[in-house]
Amino acid sequence: MATTLKIGDNASITRSFTEQDVIDYAELSGDKNPAHLDAAYAAQTQFKYRIVHGMLVGSLFSALLGAHLPGEGTIYMGQNLQFKAPVYFDTEVIASVEVIKIHETKPIVTLKTTCVDSDGNELVAGEAVVFVPWLTRD
Amino acid sequence: MATTLKIGDNASITRSFTEQDVIDYAELSGDKNPAHLDAAYAAQTQFKYRIVHGMLVGSLFSALLGAHLPGEGTIYMGQNLQFKAPVYFDTEVIASVEVIKIHETKPIVTLKTTCVDSDGNELVAGEAVVFVPWLTRD
Repeated sequence: MATTLKIGDNASITRSFTEQDVIDYAELSGDKNPAHLDAAYAAQTQFKYRIVHGMLVGSLFSALLGAHLPGEGTIYMGQNLQFKAPVYFDTEVIASVEVIKIHETKPIVTLKTTCVDSDGNELVAGEAVVFVPWLTRD
Repeated sequence: MATTLKIGDNASITRSFTEQDVIDYAELSGDKNPAHLDAAYAAQTQFKYRIVHGMLVGSLFSALLGAHLPGEGTIYMGQNLQFKAPVYFDTEVIASVEVIKIHETKPIVTLKTTCVDSDGNELVAGEAVVFVPWLTRD
């Protein structure tokens, strides 16, 4: 495992969310908003179809940060999320994190966090701040 | 359903997260960080015990906003989260949202979002911005 990071280091994962994923997340979180669960209700909304919970899409950043970059041991200090466009079921989402700032003295790293669709349209934007216990200086 | 909101309106829910909730969220999100899943690993970390994923704790805000305040029809525009302290398994978490700003002309509302433990210690802080299609003016 690397013990240093540099500005521009990045990682990404691609996945889509199924109807079952959304049902499971609704159960787990308690967020049973019909915009996510009820097709007839969703048809009356501006989005026309059921959409994936924004916070479920945002969970991709948690997965990336904890498993890929910075990786194991990473402690989440903060995350901001702007939900830019709806994410529909079974639609490919590419989630990316990129190191944009490393604290001068503490092992605290800021990463840009982005989800786009396969056409490059921005779905979720934001930044994460993490504590990386194993981070050493060059 | 109310069609107006005012500064100070608030709602809260209380729950705890079980080991099974954390396992389910790890599967659903792909975030299999051992800090959440592996008791022996967690014992070596600063937190000593396995902790609930921060983004799973944050899902309480999604549930509150979509089901309680503002309630059905609410569209999530943004959420920021600061993870202030670890949330352990089977520990009661009180999540609250409170209206702190209503846009002068658009149906856009900002809410303070907070999780505390049963002693009032802050676990998660932040703000949500939501679009509320049914919002009318007094």
